[in-house]
Amino acid sequence: MSKTNVPYKIYLSENELPKEWYNVRADMRTDHRPLLNPATLKPCTLEELEPVFCTELAKQELNDTDALIPIPGEVRDFYKMYRPSPLVRAYCLEKYLDTPAEIYYKFEGNNTSGSHKLNSAIAQAYYAKEQGLKGLTTETGAGQWGTALSMACGYFGLDLTVYMVRCSYEQKPQRRTVMQVYGAKVIPSPSDTTAVGRKMLAEHPDNTSGSLGTAISEAVEVATHGEGLRYALGSVLNQVMLHQSVIGLESLAAMEKADAYPDMVIGCAGGGSNLGGLMAPFMRDKLRGKASPYFIAVEPMSCPSLTRGKFAYDFCDTGRVTPLAKMYTLGSGFMPAPSHAGGLRYHGMSPILSQLYHDGYIDEARAVSQVDVFKSAIEFARVEGILPAPESAHAIKVAVDEAKKCKETGEKKTILFGLTGTGYFDLYAYEKSLAGTLADAPPTDEMIEESESTMPSVG
Amino acid sequence: MSKTNVPYKIYLSENELPKEWYNVRADMRTDHRPLLNPATLKPCTLEELEPVFCTELAKQELNDTDALIPIPGEVRDFYKMYRPSPLVRAYCLEKYLDTPAEIYYKFEGNNTSGSHKLNSAIAQAYYAKEQGLKGLTTETGAGQWGTALSMACGYFGLDLTVYMVRCSYEQKPQRRTVMQVYGAKVIPSPSDTTAVGRKMLAEHPDNTSGSLGTAISEAVEVATHGEGLRYALGSVLNQVMLHQSVIGLESLAAMEKADAYPDMVIGCAGGGSNLGGLMAPFMRDKLRGKASPYFIAVEPMSCPSLTRGKFAYDFCDTGRVTPLAKMYTLGSGFMPAPSHAGGLRYHGMSPILSQLYHDGYIDEARAVSQVDVFKSAIEFARVEGILPAPESAHAIKVAVDEAKKCKETGEKKTILFGLTGTGYFDLYAYEKSLAGTLADAPPTDEMIEESESTMPSVG
Repeated sequence: MSKTNVPYKIYLSENELPKEWYNVRADMRTDHRPLLNPATLKPCTLEELEPVFCTELAKQELNDTDALIPIPGEVRDFYKMYRPSPLVRAYCLEKYLDTPAEIYYKFEGNNTSGSHKLNSAIAQAYYAKEQGLKGLTTETGAGQWGTALSMACGYFGLDLTVYMVRCSYEQKPQRRTVMQVYGAKVIPSPSDTTAVGRKMLAEHPDNTSGSLGTAISEAVEVATHGEGLRYALGSVLNQVMLHQSVIGLESLAAMEKADAYPDMVIGCAGGGSNLGGLMAPFMRDKLRGKASPYFIAVEPMSCPSLTRGKFAYDFCDTGRVTPLAKMYTLGSGFMPAPSHAGGLRYHGMSPILSQLYHDGYIDEARAVSQVDVFKSAIEFARVEGILPAPESAHAIKVAVDEAKKCKETGEKKTILFGLTGTGYFDLYAYEKSLAGTLADAPPTDEMIEESESTMPSVG
Repeated sequence: MSKTNVPYKIYLSENELPKEWYNVRADMRTDHRPLLNPATLKPCTLEELEPVFCTELAKQELNDTDALIPIPGEVRDFYKMYRPSPLVRAYCLEKYLDTPAEIYYKFEGNNTSGSHKLNSAIAQAYYAKEQGLKGLTTETGAGQWGTALSMACGYFGLDLTVYMVRCSYEQKPQRRTVMQVYGAKVIPSPSDTTAVGRKMLAEHPDNTSGSLGTAISEAVEVATHGEGLRYALGSVLNQVMLHQSVIGLESLAAMEKADAYPDMVIGCAGGGSNLGGLMAPFMRDKLRGKASPYFIAVEPMSCPSLTRGKFAYDFCDTGRVTPLAKMYTLGSGFMPAPSHAGGLRYHGMSPILSQLYHDGYIDEARAVSQVDVFKSAIEFARVEGILPAPESAHAIKVAVDEAKKCKETGEKKTILFGLTGTGYFDLYAYEKSLAGTLADAPPTDEMIEESESTMPSVG
């Protein structure tokens, strides 16, 4: 499929915005493996999830029957402040690459959180408010999710406590301040505000730099022990994939306006929230036999859960307090080498994406070098103007590679990729890239074996 | 005028984008006072400006007859990558203030430079490329203009040397890195690369923190002594007001779609590029007697050029190397107290805005406290989602004040203000605001008298 005279940016009008999220589980052919309670190894029930998540979100987590779930009016109103996000026809990139491919990207960075995370944050805050809760707790590493949830809670007047991995808290004071501007309480983790934090501090007095695993455990502890509080998470969960479907639904509608349809859909994948959202309606077409776009999940070499992990039941967190999920995982104890795409440093992968990849509906996973990724990011910034987040640049790298292949073969493919956010808070990594001092450190087979050996043995 | 059912954001379609800039000088009734050569005190000629600026830009600088100047196709193509910027109906702010006023703002922050500066940067780079030049030089303080010009030069493949005030260079390494990503050479000023820089270093070996005045002088020296180089400036100049008219022209067209017209237009004013651009077509209506919107220029208490300066001929720079301009000025030697709105720390004001204010077409100038400005910024961020630049927040503060007055009087005014950019690189100032440690330091009368005493005596 091929189009000219498409505008540089395609915006939907306000009344064309999606009124429902799409739940891909309703169309999946393989029975989705349930979350398991690690104590009983039985499927988690609504009652077991309710102390952790708002009731409506717990229901969404378990819902594998309803394909369409209405977006509440107040969430739609908030979406109208920063959505629709533009679908961009990358004319300048096409010209620069001299490719016959037609490249589109969905740009989710035009909001203060700087990424797509806000799409789920506002939904999670809304349901908390509807339930009459006092507030939410969460953890954040690089800070994008924490910022998004701070904005959402600030908007609805909910309390928010963010456990921020201490090394990020100290290295990224700007991120911390943004959250505080929106009214969040930001606590460096490990902290003395929780039992698990105090235990970590007592056991490792010399190493207080923290980890996402510990921060999750602290946030869950506070949510489940406090009154009127619940916990919120920005990726991996089924509910998050549901909310993020707004990305793909808008992309489909915008491409229809351009009379275009993607031959190929490319997204970076850490926990899976961006790719899960972008691909949703195109995956629906594939599952229903209406079209067969080629899906590529891009991950960093340093954290290759799809390309080198196992499809197995594992804990969602390092602290091993969450339910077990069937997913591609490197083992919950896996510690990726430092990488500048913090949002992709997760040992596992969304169970939905994992199943779709296992069943061949996601056609390919590709692990790429961050050295190459930053080169692509800088090229992209110069020709398309936007400074991409390192996570997003993983998708750019593969889109560029595919467009170059089209140049070789003469194929006029239509490529759609997700540009999840901006890199304004990642400039230290850009500086290293310009200086030529970035490197890759893929895990050795031994490291993966050792980490996988800690996985629970579940059928 | 009053409207309901207006969308949250009004976007123009690509074919509705302005095809011409509007030159307000063609409609001004008072003869615009020319730039003067400080040596001869005679009006600057094209020949005198050409060694400094590209020929086409020098012509624009002197043009007071053509009301419409075509926007070159390549500039329009670049505009399509990040424009139209949204005109936002501030429903959430209106509701929060419980005001009958209808508030609109034009948001210019959705591009990697983070501000409206890109509108003129891409035009200046284009004319440099058309003239076959090798590159441009400029200075930057806070870094927004330097970033914008880096993006523009990166796009057209021009060399760019940015003299960055050394204290900013050291305090804002992220800003420096963004410019380098786009291919610019960034030099801390004062430097040993110019005669004026070496002189400063020799005379003040203990104070190398630099100033915008010195950085301008270094950039001009390199441009005028090098081959194939010219100098570029991001505000104050007539050419910049011309390019920035795209802001107002889009705003007018978007408001027409909503069947709305502003009773009041509010913008922050440092050198004047934002307010000059935003107000352009509405000022045209006023000058032509078609409408009479009320214009407010907002400036910081710490640098009150319109409210406490003189309307007189003065140098545009601290180093006293530029032509003389007739403008509201505090004296080119004026040193404002540190303020977090770096873009508003300028001793003078666009000659166009100055004349319009002097003649009463700009109805009011208002100097506001940065303590209050940051309070408004934080309120705005929480209800409208966007974290504003400190400069932009000056306009927010006054828009909020005016909307509150409407609540008292019951008037249903339509208010339009300019939201020039985002505050992602200004979080230190937000941190101080949250901590309650911001303060104001308006200059004493004695300080202004002393600074004004250095002004040249020109009729």
